[in-house]
Amino acid sequence: MQLAGKQTAARPCAPRTVRAAGRARVVLVRAEAAAAPTATPATAAKNNEHEELKRYGVFKLAYDTTNEDPSLTQAWQKTVKVAVTGASGQISNHLLFMLASGEVFGKNQPVALQLLGSDRSFGALEGVAMELEDSLYPLLREVSISTDPFAVMSDADWALMIGAKPRGPGQERADLLDQNGRIFVDQGRALNEAAGRNCKVMVVGNPCNTNALIAMENAPNIPRKNFHALTRLDENRAKCQLALKAGKFYTNVSRTAIWGNHSTTQVPDFINARIGGRPAIDVVQDMKWFKEEFTPTVANRGGALIKKWGRSSAASTAVSIADAIRSLVTPTAPGDCFSSAVCTDGNPYGIKEGLIFSMPCRSKGDGDYEICDDFIIDDWLRKKIAATEEELVKEKECVGHLIGITGAACRIGPGEDTMLPGEN
Amino acid sequence: MQLAGKQTAARPCAPRTVRAAGRARVVLVRAEAAAAPTATPATAAKNNEHEELKRYGVFKLAYDTTNEDPSLTQAWQKTVKVAVTGASGQISNHLLFMLASGEVFGKNQPVALQLLGSDRSFGALEGVAMELEDSLYPLLREVSISTDPFAVMSDADWALMIGAKPRGPGQERADLLDQNGRIFVDQGRALNEAAGRNCKVMVVGNPCNTNALIAMENAPNIPRKNFHALTRLDENRAKCQLALKAGKFYTNVSRTAIWGNHSTTQVPDFINARIGGRPAIDVVQDMKWFKEEFTPTVANRGGALIKKWGRSSAASTAVSIADAIRSLVTPTAPGDCFSSAVCTDGNPYGIKEGLIFSMPCRSKGDGDYEICDDFIIDDWLRKKIAATEEELVKEKECVGHLIGITGAACRIGPGEDTMLPGEN
Repeated sequence: MQLAGKQTAARPCAPRTVRAAGRARVVLVRAEAAAAPTATPATAAKNNEHEELKRYGVFKLAYDTTNEDPSLTQAWQKTVKVAVTGASGQISNHLLFMLASGEVFGKNQPVALQLLGSDRSFGALEGVAMELEDSLYPLLREVSISTDPFAVMSDADWALMIGAKPRGPGQERADLLDQNGRIFVDQGRALNEAAGRNCKVMVVGNPCNTNALIAMENAPNIPRKNFHALTRLDENRAKCQLALKAGKFYTNVSRTAIWGNHSTTQVPDFINARIGGRPAIDVVQDMKWFKEEFTPTVANRGGALIKKWGRSSAASTAVSIADAIRSLVTPTAPGDCFSSAVCTDGNPYGIKEGLIFSMPCRSKGDGDYEICDDFIIDDWLRKKIAATEEELVKEKECVGHLIGITGAACRIGPGEDTMLPGEN
Repeated sequence: MQLAGKQTAARPCAPRTVRAAGRARVVLVRAEAAAAPTATPATAAKNNEHEELKRYGVFKLAYDTTNEDPSLTQAWQKTVKVAVTGASGQISNHLLFMLASGEVFGKNQPVALQLLGSDRSFGALEGVAMELEDSLYPLLREVSISTDPFAVMSDADWALMIGAKPRGPGQERADLLDQNGRIFVDQGRALNEAAGRNCKVMVVGNPCNTNALIAMENAPNIPRKNFHALTRLDENRAKCQLALKAGKFYTNVSRTAIWGNHSTTQVPDFINARIGGRPAIDVVQDMKWFKEEFTPTVANRGGALIKKWGRSSAASTAVSIADAIRSLVTPTAPGDCFSSAVCTDGNPYGIKEGLIFSMPCRSKGDGDYEICDDFIIDDWLRKKIAATEEELVKEKECVGHLIGITGAACRIGPGEDTMLPGEN
């Protein structure tokens, strides 16, 4: 009962066992909220009761790695706990298997998956857990499923926040920001109370920069530096397009930053990008292409893919999440960088503080990172960065009520929209 | 133009360029078939013309690994060519990314993917190729897409035959066998003419044992030993259920064979299975459970999953295909085995020859295997094996007209059905 101990430290609580929906479950009741013994998981969360995180199926079994083949387990590290929201969705359906395989955290790193679904998706969540059972991944030691974000976040070392509500028909950007924002208020609070104190948070659900900002502002116990929004798929797509244009294979492309918002104002940086170790602008020598075609091609790639396929790019999104995590747990190659939307506090480029803004980063492989401070910002780049910065400031104002800012007014008008094609 | 060379050796042909559907493409015309310059890819295949296998997008680029970071490429082996049918389907959508990541063939093994789709699914196939581009896998050196099985099979080292037609409403087993059988006649012939002479073939599309048999009988140039039908998902599910029952983690379970058909008559072998190195029957000590619950639980697992999720188990199927390939390219642990449905010719258990029948196998890791000859067959197992053998004999008779057997009569009556739940 890890959650109980954690909550006790913060405020008094009294665990007790109630019978709900025909099965025994432990409900942790906060002192200030009365227990509703017949509560469903969904109402339980609302009433500030929290489910205990329960392992699924074969993962309930006690196992003792000292009884296992030492060639398998002798170099194993302490199990990493990974909370995943939107766990029954398409992206997770790829990502969870990548996490379990050891491809992301390494071959000596056992993994616990703590999966969040909704009441509606709970059957699908069980289906995912069954498929994970049947995959027999040696490193996958625990799988737990729940509809309670507090339970799922408990002691998490990583929180991968993939779930978000898609836009409804005719819904305006401001409404979408608000609707998804509320989810990230709840999940941010769950992080704040239940997650490990150095939990790394990666937000994928769109609008991901502002969702990450909301989670960060609602989780003051977690270092602000630990919050990321995913722009790695944009980086990967930019590298592919640079390779295509240069006639070189993509392994030759490095130092390709994405600046700003994961939206159509994003700035894929060709000024600092390198191809075969040389500046991309010297290799390609086609500034018109860089300025007029490269950026929209990258930003519209998801839409182009949907047109071909009729579905969005779940597999490559999952690959890019795996890449983003791997970039934080393995050292960055000298001179290279990876893109991540992180908190702008103290950034070396004069970008307004208090935003989640994609910038070039590097890591020693310890889960932490620093913002690269040696990127050249020319006039063109400066103007583009200012535009995406302004957009993020506007988004922040629209969610002011969710992050404790009073008096902010939403300046995003009806019909104004910056979502990536296909993401609504 | 690898295909041209191969075809020239077999029979004279004259490549020429025609313009079809608004784009230039090279059509290889066999001497005995006149070219139809306006042919579509589908009719081209029927007219014995063959498309040239063309690389997609960024994979068209010439790359020179000697120009790349030697720490990446110095230990690389010759690129392995993997043909995949049904490449735009759900299972492939997981599998292709696993193959590209290096998880299956190893971290020093560059991979070329040769993907087969249909005219109807061609957009989706392009979508998959785009997502593979955007994933920037260093080991993924070539991706080609085509609707022509001969092009896709050209020089293949592995052929993963995942595509099959699902059953239509009210369609009988015999009709399904015939309908899918015809696909595997065509693809078997393509293997025979175009694939590498030691190509390993793994059939996943159902009914997979009999489909593999049809492909094998139509590809006399490929060793019969090289044909597999997938029963590894059944093995993985059996291991998970044994672990659950024994209260041990699944890493403790070994030597779990599946015998016979990938259908409800399959025989998950608890007699020879081991848990923690001890016979499973000594650990569990519940023969009633083994005989009455274990087998149906394994056979019905796919159906149970569909009930939870409303969709079939694509991810864990892909994992099991990856496992099955990995078992052939890495040495089997001493005393252990893996299950694969392979040709019964010369088998040590007296099973009728000329069938594709799941048996326990072991490998030195060279892509080849031998059938384990030390499994105990008690009376119970013998009876169960005989029943699944009889079913496969019946299936073979039903497709006699597709494998050159004259006078065979189909004895599978209307309403008789052995498909796994959820697989139709």
